[in-house]
Amino acid sequence: MRYGYLGPETTFTHQALLQALAVMPREVTDTVEQVPFTAVATATTDLLAGDIDALIAPIENSVEGGVSGTLDVLAATDSITIVAEQIVQVTFVLAAREETALTDLRVVSSHPHAQAQVQGWLRGHVPSANVATASSTAAAARDLAAMSPEEARGRAAVCSPLAAEHFGLTVLAEQIEDNAGAQTRFVLVTREGRIPARTGADKTTLVVQLPHNRSGALLETLEMFSANGVNLSRIESRPIGDFLGRYSFSIDVEGHIEDRRVAASLRALHRICPVVHYLGSYPRIDGISSETREEFADDTYDEAHAWIESLTGMVTPPSTGSPSTD
Amino acid sequence: MRYGYLGPETTFTHQALLQALAVMPREVTDTVEQVPFTAVATATTDLLAGDIDALIAPIENSVEGGVSGTLDVLAATDSITIVAEQIVQVTFVLAAREETALTDLRVVSSHPHAQAQVQGWLRGHVPSANVATASSTAAAARDLAAMSPEEARGRAAVCSPLAAEHFGLTVLAEQIEDNAGAQTRFVLVTREGRIPARTGADKTTLVVQLPHNRSGALLETLEMFSANGVNLSRIESRPIGDFLGRYSFSIDVEGHIEDRRVAASLRALHRICPVVHYLGSYPRIDGISSETREEFADDTYDEAHAWIESLTGMVTPPSTGSPSTD
Amino acid sequence: MRYGYLGPETTFTHQALLQALAVMPREVTDTVEQVPFTAVATATTDLLAGDIDALIAPIENSVEGGVSGTLDVLAATDSITIVAEQIVQVTFVLAAREETALTDLRVVSSHPHAQAQVQGWLRGHVPSANVATASSTAAAARDLAAMSPEEARGRAAVCSPLAAEHFGLTVLAEQIEDNAGAQTRFVLVTREGRIPARTGADKTTLVVQLPHNRSGALLETLEMFSANGVNLSRIESRPIGDFLGRYSFSIDVEGHIEDRRVAASLRALHRICPVVHYLGSYPRIDGISSETREEFADDTYDEAHAWIESLTGMVTPPSTGSPSTD
Amino acid sequence: MRYGYLGPETTFTHQALLQALAVMPREVTDTVEQVPFTAVATATTDLLAGDIDALIAPIENSVEGGVSGTLDVLAATDSITIVAEQIVQVTFVLAAREETALTDLRVVSSHPHAQAQVQGWLRGHVPSANVATASSTAAAARDLAAMSPEEARGRAAVCSPLAAEHFGLTVLAEQIEDNAGAQTRFVLVTREGRIPARTGADKTTLVVQLPHNRSGALLETLEMFSANGVNLSRIESRPIGDFLGRYSFSIDVEGHIEDRRVAASLRALHRICPVVHYLGSYPRIDGISSETREEFADDTYDEAHAWIESLTGMVTPPSTGSPSTD
Repeated sequence: MRYGYLGPETTFTHQALLQALAVMPREVTDTVEQVPFTAVATATTDLLAGDIDALIAPIENSVEGGVSGTLDVLAATDSITIVAEQIVQVTFVLAAREETALTDLRVVSSHPHAQAQVQGWLRGHVPSANVATASSTAAAARDLAAMSPEEARGRAAVCSPLAAEHFGLTVLAEQIEDNAGAQTRFVLVTREGRIPARTGADKTTLVVQLPHNRSGALLETLEMFSANGVNLSRIESRPIGDFLGRYSFSIDVEGHIEDRRVAASLRALHRICPVVHYLGSYPRIDGISSETREEFADDTYDEAHAWIESLTGMVTPPSTGSPSTD
Repeated sequence: MRYGYLGPETTFTHQALLQALAVMPREVTDTVEQVPFTAVATATTDLLAGDIDALIAPIENSVEGGVSGTLDVLAATDSITIVAEQIVQVTFVLAAREETALTDLRVVSSHPHAQAQVQGWLRGHVPSANVATASSTAAAARDLAAMSPEEARGRAAVCSPLAAEHFGLTVLAEQIEDNAGAQTRFVLVTREGRIPARTGADKTTLVVQLPHNRSGALLETLEMFSANGVNLSRIESRPIGDFLGRYSFSIDVEGHIEDRRVAASLRALHRICPVVHYLGSYPRIDGISSETREEFADDTYDEAHAWIESLTGMVTPPSTGSPSTD
Repeated sequence: MRYGYLGPETTFTHQALLQALAVMPREVTDTVEQVPFTAVATATTDLLAGDIDALIAPIENSVEGGVSGTLDVLAATDSITIVAEQIVQVTFVLAAREETALTDLRVVSSHPHAQAQVQGWLRGHVPSANVATASSTAAAARDLAAMSPEEARGRAAVCSPLAAEHFGLTVLAEQIEDNAGAQTRFVLVTREGRIPARTGADKTTLVVQLPHNRSGALLETLEMFSANGVNLSRIESRPIGDFLGRYSFSIDVEGHIEDRRVAASLRALHRICPVVHYLGSYPRIDGISSETREEFADDTYDEAHAWIESLTGMVTPPSTGSPSTD
Repeated sequence: MRYGYLGPETTFTHQALLQALAVMPREVTDTVEQVPFTAVATATTDLLAGDIDALIAPIENSVEGGVSGTLDVLAATDSITIVAEQIVQVTFVLAAREETALTDLRVVSSHPHAQAQVQGWLRGHVPSANVATASSTAAAARDLAAMSPEEARGRAAVCSPLAAEHFGLTVLAEQIEDNAGAQTRFVLVTREGRIPARTGADKTTLVVQLPHNRSGALLETLEMFSANGVNLSRIESRPIGDFLGRYSFSIDVEGHIEDRRVAASLRALHRICPVVHYLGSYPRIDGISSETREEFADDTYDEAHAWIESLTGMVTPPSTGSPSTD
């Protein structure tokens, strides 16, 4: 089993993969090979080609919002399924090759997303250092570790604690993020084929394109969820790409495709939306099951279904006719 | 075949029955016996007991509104089905035993409902006559015809043209109703068992009791129809009878129980309402099929259903488990 | 001050008037003259002509439903205002001139509405008696009291306890109504001019005619109430009278026209409905104030209003123009 | 007058500013000084400090979606107003210092957003060249122009036609974008103070934070617009930043704050949402006025308002009391 992740080693995505593997049985994890990638698009191509078996990618960050690259690849790819989620606490350290006074730092390197999350701290604590861009926080740490001692002098990297440790760097400051408590959510994606069984605490992910000839289409779509008691836990707009103001929506709802209320709302969406892309149903990482009012319980849907079946069973077959319809 | 109607002969209900029989094949109508009743409740008892096979009753009048007696009996009775509707143009004549000047009339008899519909005309044309109450317009005509000539002098009846003709009365004035164009709608009711086949231009009749612990319950109910593109052609409130402000709703919708959009809205009602009483699906007498947008067409519902089936078919059986759910 | 009521004396409407007077100050009630009428329509004409100053009429019965006569007169009359409501517990007695065995009764007289509410009891206890129709339960009692002893023998009236007492009849049986706990609601109507001040526990009565070119118009109307947190305590459909399926709705909502949430929903109705007939705001007889969520409180509306005022105050006057709009 | 833009010269934002100035009167544009900035955040700080008078920034791209940097600054800043919009057709050229065969190119530099929009073309036409990152497409062109001829050999920049021309580069290929017809929308922002007058073809921009204790809050919010006939032309979710799943929505609606329907929907939002940030009403660049049904016209709102005023004018002042409320 080959699992792809956005590398290099020690990125937050790598950390998410390690978290996912930590709860799998030993006989599974023993067979897993971890494969770093540089882009979700490339990893997805390899997934579809069978070169890897699964792929973990960031989908949502509590500070930066939806991860466009992942959202757009998921929206555009047909034969993949989300089978699990992971949430990673995002925290950054400032790390150098050796103990250094902050005032001696000339260059701080990191990934732009990380920079955005620590820029207040950097302005306050190392205002004079230049900020250099790396392709990932892990790369910033790795590159610093690979430099000659002279080259590395006066340089630091903004990276994860895992990266600092892995590459043997010295931590100058911890928890330097401006918004404490930031989290990134990751999804584990496989080639389509199997949807994880319902656990009672599940999520379902969709990409929905609205009918563009109808104002109020988003309202109508949300009403279908509301009519079936289905809560949204995430909604992200993404441009469809053809012209301004045309959006698709990436949506997570509480519940599993096997929950009648979820199936009923998806059926309704399928009727009114030109595109409903089902990306999977999978267990919530927090394990919290949403309370369901009686009118939205499986039994209630099943009884309503049986009632209508009993009624339509009484309809006169059209061939014979009946006095009342002559 | 015994067909009950609100009698006596020549009532508007009788006329509705004659209209219904007129379009049935000769071999059916040859076997029909017409049975007059004095009340819908009595006739319904006989219908349930098997003494008659069908029953025709007024349900709605364009001037007087819903016919409470019929609505309440339909709401309270379980094993009956509406299989057809009829609409009768309501027009009244003033009829006497012989040609009489309007100024010579002392007493005008009729049924209270008819009186309500001609009171303007009576005030204008025979202001000095007393109004006497008969149990039906037909009874008013019949009783007048049965009187001695002396007794009948100075008397007239407000009745249907059919009644005047049938009982040999002289028409003093025609179309004396205050609102020209009034109509009464009748339903033909049988013991439950067979629902007429779908014709494409059908109606479905329901009695719905709302959840009384929820303000906005009527709104919620109407949304279920709206979400499935189902139009209401009639909605009547009737008290449930236990305390003030508790209503059930008698509803006609466009479409047949076999129309997916009707079945879907009824399923939703069944989930949220404590009582949904299905009274039948039957051809509209005006034969007008309602236009249905593509999103509410049968095929659209069927495709959505098939799509969900294909998805749930991919769910891992819970017994085996899957790596992602461990 | 002349107060009209549906007579004769001791009807339930009379009882409602007595209840209303009982809570007025002595100096008001001392000046009140009670004027019986035979029909709401006639009394309304007298009210509009200034012959009486107020009028009390039944509007709703927990068993029989809306009182069509009153509803239709209220809907059709422009310059009247409902200023109060009363609720009367409906209970019937069987009363005769003297103590009589039930088996000796030949004729039981009453008003059809009362008969409908006691028919189960009558069938069970005096199955062999004929039922005679009187113009009111009070008239049944009064007529019985006026008969000669011989004529009165074997006769009884179904009437209110008040009527039996007032006309000196002997009560043979009490609480003979089939549905214990039935209530009738009455409204006190004056010529338009003054709306009672807000008490915090009020009702507002409307007659609304829906746009007939729009399916879903009732849904839209209810959404306007829902969007402003306004509960409906009664909704009655009444035919408009021009053709089948055309209804107006008689509606009571919780709250007073001076409640911002009520005013806001009425403004919305005024925009979308061809006819919104305001019939008055008045204190609830039960004195129960409805809880209002913060988003529907007066302050919340006032703050939203002030916010928009502050914004529109910043708009450049159109005459001068601004760089951005050239 | 100092107008800030995301520089350097010849960026698409600069082009938007030139478009905006092109339609202003000569006496205004003569006084305008164009001031390049490197980030929206910095420019906004200068705007608030009074160092510049206006600022133009990209808000939305038809391929890449909302421009997070601008959206987040607008959401977080209180005293600024959007007074105009501009739309720029996005097209790219591949430009070098001199005529060069595509196969001779070793390095192609550009901004990551531009790279994303031409990556298909680059893979197809210059597969072997390395892609270098510049801080803007204009910087890529400028830097190329500033190199020595030797350094510049084998290098090209992906930039706007304007940049290629301005920096004297040779265009090797035109319209190399993968999605023809891409557009970017820009907003012109001033310090709060004046809102442009209503033109009849306007837009209003808002940032709305939903009540987080209520599932269905987005639905409720959209219903407020729908109830007032207000169309959304853009809706973008942005994380609030505190934890996963907490979003604000950046919204453009059709209409001006002076349109009654817009004011009414904003009032409703103000009641139900913890934060409604009004960012301005301004003329649509396409000049298209949206059709408004009669029920949403200004007159209709004004008449409804006047009607309620006339009713509340009739309410008895609470101090005096009235017989009906005693």
